[in-house]
Amino acid sequence: MSTIRGLEVIDIRFPTSRNLDGSDAMNPDRDYSGAYVIVRTDAEDGLEGHGFTFTIGRGTEVVVAAVGALRPLVIGRSTDDLFGDMGAFWRDLVGDSQLRWIGPEKGVIHLATAAVVNAVWDLYAKVSGKPLWQLITEMTAEEIVGLVDFRYISDALPPGRALERLQALAPGRAEREAELRRDGYPAYTTSVGWLGYDDEKIRRLCREALAEGWTRFKLKVGADLDDDRRRARIVREEIGPDAMMAIDANQRWDVDEAIAWVNALAEFDPYWIEEPTSPDDILGHAAVARGVAPIRVATGEHVHNRVMFKQLLQADAISICQIDAARLGGVNEVIAVLLMAAEFGVPVCPHAGGVGLCELVQHLSAIDYISISGSLEGRMIEYVDHLHEHFIDTVEIRDARYVLPGEPGYSAEMRPDSLTRFRFPDGAEWEAIRAEVAASAR
Amino acid sequence: MSTIRGLEVIDIRFPTSRNLDGSDAMNPDRDYSGAYVIVRTDAEDGLEGHGFTFTIGRGTEVVVAAVGALRPLVIGRSTDDLFGDMGAFWRDLVGDSQLRWIGPEKGVIHLATAAVVNAVWDLYAKVSGKPLWQLITEMTAEEIVGLVDFRYISDALPPGRALERLQALAPGRAEREAELRRDGYPAYTTSVGWLGYDDEKIRRLCREALAEGWTRFKLKVGADLDDDRRRARIVREEIGPDAMMAIDANQRWDVDEAIAWVNALAEFDPYWIEEPTSPDDILGHAAVARGVAPIRVATGEHVHNRVMFKQLLQADAISICQIDAARLGGVNEVIAVLLMAAEFGVPVCPHAGGVGLCELVQHLSAIDYISISGSLEGRMIEYVDHLHEHFIDTVEIRDARYVLPGEPGYSAEMRPDSLTRFRFPDGAEWEAIRAEVAASAR
Repeated sequence: MSTIRGLEVIDIRFPTSRNLDGSDAMNPDRDYSGAYVIVRTDAEDGLEGHGFTFTIGRGTEVVVAAVGALRPLVIGRSTDDLFGDMGAFWRDLVGDSQLRWIGPEKGVIHLATAAVVNAVWDLYAKVSGKPLWQLITEMTAEEIVGLVDFRYISDALPPGRALERLQALAPGRAEREAELRRDGYPAYTTSVGWLGYDDEKIRRLCREALAEGWTRFKLKVGADLDDDRRRARIVREEIGPDAMMAIDANQRWDVDEAIAWVNALAEFDPYWIEEPTSPDDILGHAAVARGVAPIRVATGEHVHNRVMFKQLLQADAISICQIDAARLGGVNEVIAVLLMAAEFGVPVCPHAGGVGLCELVQHLSAIDYISISGSLEGRMIEYVDHLHEHFIDTVEIRDARYVLPGEPGYSAEMRPDSLTRFRFPDGAEWEAIRAEVAASAR
Repeated sequence: MSTIRGLEVIDIRFPTSRNLDGSDAMNPDRDYSGAYVIVRTDAEDGLEGHGFTFTIGRGTEVVVAAVGALRPLVIGRSTDDLFGDMGAFWRDLVGDSQLRWIGPEKGVIHLATAAVVNAVWDLYAKVSGKPLWQLITEMTAEEIVGLVDFRYISDALPPGRALERLQALAPGRAEREAELRRDGYPAYTTSVGWLGYDDEKIRRLCREALAEGWTRFKLKVGADLDDDRRRARIVREEIGPDAMMAIDANQRWDVDEAIAWVNALAEFDPYWIEEPTSPDDILGHAAVARGVAPIRVATGEHVHNRVMFKQLLQADAISICQIDAARLGGVNEVIAVLLMAAEFGVPVCPHAGGVGLCELVQHLSAIDYISISGSLEGRMIEYVDHLHEHFIDTVEIRDARYVLPGEPGYSAEMRPDSLTRFRFPDGAEWEAIRAEVAASAR
């Protein structure tokens, strides 16, 4: 038996705003960042759990403070108890009667919950000697149901119904796992279409991506309709009529505006419109879905918990469910949403990119295919070619598909030198940037 | 012209958990707290803006950190610019492209926004020499519309429609103001029915409240149905068949459970069921509303922004709209919700109690009556007799009605000695509690 003795949290920021990687209609200047958690035990194996939530610069320090508020709920716990009932651990974290007030289960405190929960899962998987996806797909149906907090979702998915689904899919698990090991998991690329890129860069990136085997693309839209039409035409010209092109407005529009704008881009055959409006607006998404059909509506990177996803599904508001590994409260809540999406027949295409999200969601999509949905139809993981070099067990893409990860853990661990160099505000990279800014101001 | 030169933030906590004041089915041990903001300028008048958001203990330090993240958006601003366009100020605060990620407009960062926005409004009202309600009700319809961010709510309430409403109501403003000055604003009391109180205490408090003129009461429910039935019977016996009794479950139930439980209490004639389930569950509230009619559904103290209220109204999910002065992003967003509630014909009965919420919402209900809804029908403000002694411009109740506040400002300012004594963790009260705990542990 070992005990959790340490929980370290690091504010890490990468100065990505300097070259407009990741720019979109709502986020012109994002510095990909994270509140990064390391959980340590007194075990002799020296294994650490690493996890994080994704942020985009300012405000990361607030999430770091929230991780600090969760620390007393983790320190001193026996890992046997934790790993024996990860569902109870999750409910303890989100159920603290005072901390609950500053959410509940949303915003900063929930981002912090995600970082802590993901770190403990990483530790659990490492201790088990398995990649996270394997640890979970090898669980029994009862064990997986036990991970989920059904509070507030039992009207849409009673635990018994989830159990039936998992049991019904169990016989094909080995076959699906073998398929993923052989072929990997389908992906699409967002790297061609950031809003800050000029036309020539988009054209060049499309050609490079096609040469690498990509057939699914995403373009940022929503700042200016004429620009969007020109850029969509460029992408469609380059990728041809059969390749998939999704578009992403990053919450830019009100409901009526969304419907009009998307229909004005319909001639370019967008596969989905992502985040057309406020992530809180379930009924708004449903109205947009009706107004832009047959173009699909997708959302999720800002959908803050299972209760919101439940309603998006109940209201027929989304045709694509974009779970976020670090905005939902970590692995447990993602599984709740995977189960609901499967129940409603809606494919899950995880949000990724940022820093480290690709590393995480490859596990979640494998769990979805092997144990929960049993289908790849209409399913693909976002891929963005940023910042993977900072991770130890880095994502591997082969023929535009994610290669199933094989190392123990949740692929969440950053290289020690990256953690040191990009720590904010005192890492060497940030010292250098401040020196450069100071020099140019002289 | 003056400039904002300082923004101080204080973590203040009152040890209310020691006598179970404020106990309910989800919050057994709340220490009423706040992230308390003081805004200072370089003006010679020495006026300060005081504002806060309400919290219940642990986690207040996280909100304090979030206020710190907002500080650069406030410091250095000219008060002329601020007061000249408070709508633009609000949009700046919630629109920071990096901070937006850790919300958007929800949880910790939005609580911090409320504290800052409310402090600036307090300053504005003090500089104007008027109570907040008067500052706003004396604005033109165009000025009030200019305070509101219509982003994401224009489908339910176009700005032009809001303007029409305000203009149509303008002729009766003086008369309604005179009425409030004479009669005050109706209230109900929650002080009798906290879950931690025993039967005899409830009975005694009911009798005392009746003697003081109260005719509207609220009882906490949701922990145990037999207990609830016994307690509801006691209250109904004491207050008689004609007095109003609301019940409040503080998010305790799932949808089906809520419907069954409330119907099992129907014989005691509850006027509304408050927070039957997750505050995020718009469709769930709508299902509960259909399942418990004619008992009304009320919610709002945890409804995090105008987009959520919009949908609760669109979905016919609530018959009572319980705005919270410090969870919504301050005065501006409250006005957005008041306008929508009026448009949908739903009465606003603000959440109050905690610490300082009664002080704030009396202004908001006055604005609602004088300028926005023009009606008192079915409208009342929650009243809880806790912690008012810490405020300079303290709430006054006369004949179970709120007396219209008359001092300049937003009635938000706490006494300096209270701020010193209850500052966490270093105030004298907290030092004394720690000493007492240490002594009893010996």
